[in-house]
Amino acid sequence: MLRCTRCGKSYPEVFRLRCDCGGTLLVERDYYDFFGSLLPYLDMRRYLNFLPVGGNYLPPAIPAITPTTSLEIGGVFALFKLEYLQPSGSFKDRGTFVTVAKLMEEGINEVVLDSSGNAALSMALYSLPAGIRVHVFVSYDAMPEKLSLLQGLGAVVHFVEGDRITVHERAGEFAEREGLTYASHWLNPYFLEGTKTVAFEAYEQVGIPDYVLAPTGSGTLSLGLWKGFKELREMGEVEELPRLVAVQASGYESLCRRSRVRNMLADGIAIPKPPRLGEMRAALEEANGLCVSVNEPETMEAWEWLKRASFLVEPTSAVVLAAMWKLVETGEMPAGSKVLLPLTGSGLKMTEGI
Amino acid sequence: MLRCTRCGKSYPEVFRLRCDCGGTLLVERDYYDFFGSLLPYLDMRRYLNFLPVGGNYLPPAIPAITPTTSLEIGGVFALFKLEYLQPSGSFKDRGTFVTVAKLMEEGINEVVLDSSGNAALSMALYSLPAGIRVHVFVSYDAMPEKLSLLQGLGAVVHFVEGDRITVHERAGEFAEREGLTYASHWLNPYFLEGTKTVAFEAYEQVGIPDYVLAPTGSGTLSLGLWKGFKELREMGEVEELPRLVAVQASGYESLCRRSRVRNMLADGIAIPKPPRLGEMRAALEEANGLCVSVNEPETMEAWEWLKRASFLVEPTSAVVLAAMWKLVETGEMPAGSKVLLPLTGSGLKMTEGI
Repeated sequence: MLRCTRCGKSYPEVFRLRCDCGGTLLVERDYYDFFGSLLPYLDMRRYLNFLPVGGNYLPPAIPAITPTTSLEIGGVFALFKLEYLQPSGSFKDRGTFVTVAKLMEEGINEVVLDSSGNAALSMALYSLPAGIRVHVFVSYDAMPEKLSLLQGLGAVVHFVEGDRITVHERAGEFAEREGLTYASHWLNPYFLEGTKTVAFEAYEQVGIPDYVLAPTGSGTLSLGLWKGFKELREMGEVEELPRLVAVQASGYESLCRRSRVRNMLADGIAIPKPPRLGEMRAALEEANGLCVSVNEPETMEAWEWLKRASFLVEPTSAVVLAAMWKLVETGEMPAGSKVLLPLTGSGLKMTEGI
Repeated sequence: MLRCTRCGKSYPEVFRLRCDCGGTLLVERDYYDFFGSLLPYLDMRRYLNFLPVGGNYLPPAIPAITPTTSLEIGGVFALFKLEYLQPSGSFKDRGTFVTVAKLMEEGINEVVLDSSGNAALSMALYSLPAGIRVHVFVSYDAMPEKLSLLQGLGAVVHFVEGDRITVHERAGEFAEREGLTYASHWLNPYFLEGTKTVAFEAYEQVGIPDYVLAPTGSGTLSLGLWKGFKELREMGEVEELPRLVAVQASGYESLCRRSRVRNMLADGIAIPKPPRLGEMRAALEEANGLCVSVNEPETMEAWEWLKRASFLVEPTSAVVLAAMWKLVETGEMPAGSKVLLPLTGSGLKMTEGI
């Protein structure tokens, strides 16, 4: 079922983004026996028994199980998870995979989004074979490169004059007026069901780390990771959970104290007012977690380091390494710690007139 | 050991590209018990027991196990293997992973290549953390986009006036004059050890297909696939092997009859005189195989189809689908066939000033 994170009201598992009270929703199910429930696939379908989709329709671009590779850095074991090796070039494909399967189950063939980044790209790509028409609301200052790509993938792009919040409002109004499904990944509970599989995979690959660091804007990765680890505990599979570290972009912090100077490199997490902020705070508290803010020079330095380590990612992905350096330097992260660092988005970009 | 494919002479497993007689070399080892030899990794390290590397140094960008997804097309079961989901955006990373591990074992820290495509990009990326200096010989008409990318990854680019064969010769001369290791993936036996793991994975995922189609220029994928399937048979794991279909670009055929009109879209396989041609012929014969030539409009049509199916690949990757359509249409491929189609290269390209 779906359960409201604010008032606790439950709903059947339909495609729905908010409770009547305005609260955000999560999928709630009981799972038992992690290893006994795995399917014999070597891709994300391995975890289908933990996903709220029937399996009648699964998108053909199945997300990969991404490698997790260990490097010793400053006395700690950095476990880089190559989440950028996904069909549209980011971890968002995990959330989109579940979302599109659910939309198809419900016969929904037209949706509205407000994003011009990786989430929209992922949705446009996965919607193509599903025959779902995708409306994407963007501001006039969105990158022309990404826009032409979205259009190349058949998305209907709507331009809005105004800031990120205005774009968000216009998208909602359009969906309501046209009677269409609003499918923002910020709110969508099925999206988190996809991103939680990052935790399942990491657990199979390296066990439970001491820390998990996630770029945190809207919280779709941090909350997914946290949900996945908690479900492992609920299944009786593990007792201890990792400490969750939310890594934010300076100038856009919602959990850390807001800085004055903006980090313009980490555009993937430049989300000052995420709708799941209450849940993110609760997760950090429950996880004995931390928030770390990363500025532009720190992001650049970490990005360069990752490139030299042969990880070709986008700058937003580099903030987790910058945050780890800080925690090691200040002594907050003890030597010998196992630190999971999902690298979220590819440094490859679309060309070829797609 | 290494064995010459022409005269049969054997060599110890050093980094060596040719026999004294000029013949190409293959790694020859005896393996037993496929499933019993798998390591508990969910990435390419799963197959380390079948690779001629010690494991003291493994490159950090570990290739992924790529998803294999089934779609029914024209009465046959197309099994698309998403080989483009690799760290540098192509299947070449499998060969490079083994090659760089071997170079490091031998203490080789400077190599010479002639390629301006995916193989060079892969080598430049994997060489960065290994501290290997990479010289890349290219002709003046190489794509400026790829060149700046190679330079961004620290490769030393040498320009040569002349065609592909002249570039190849200049690279060899330079390596000899400077006393450096020539590491062309066309010749390198360790490269095929990496690409053979595509067959191992596919076997675990979908069993032995009836057909396997590979874009075939230098033959590094076809020969690797064929070696992998044969090793499964030698291990007693399977009896029947798939029919191998070499798919070539029109105007550049080495196995099919040479066409007059050139397919300029499939630049990844525009290799009219591959050095392993004899082996490729022998593999096709042994595999009861076929050669199919694909022209430019056919490539474009297949590429568009793949995009609509949510597979964002480069045009060279699309030739396998075009070839499958032909074989279905002419009745050569019977209804119900299971057809493995590795999709080799990403449609995402490098930007971000890398």
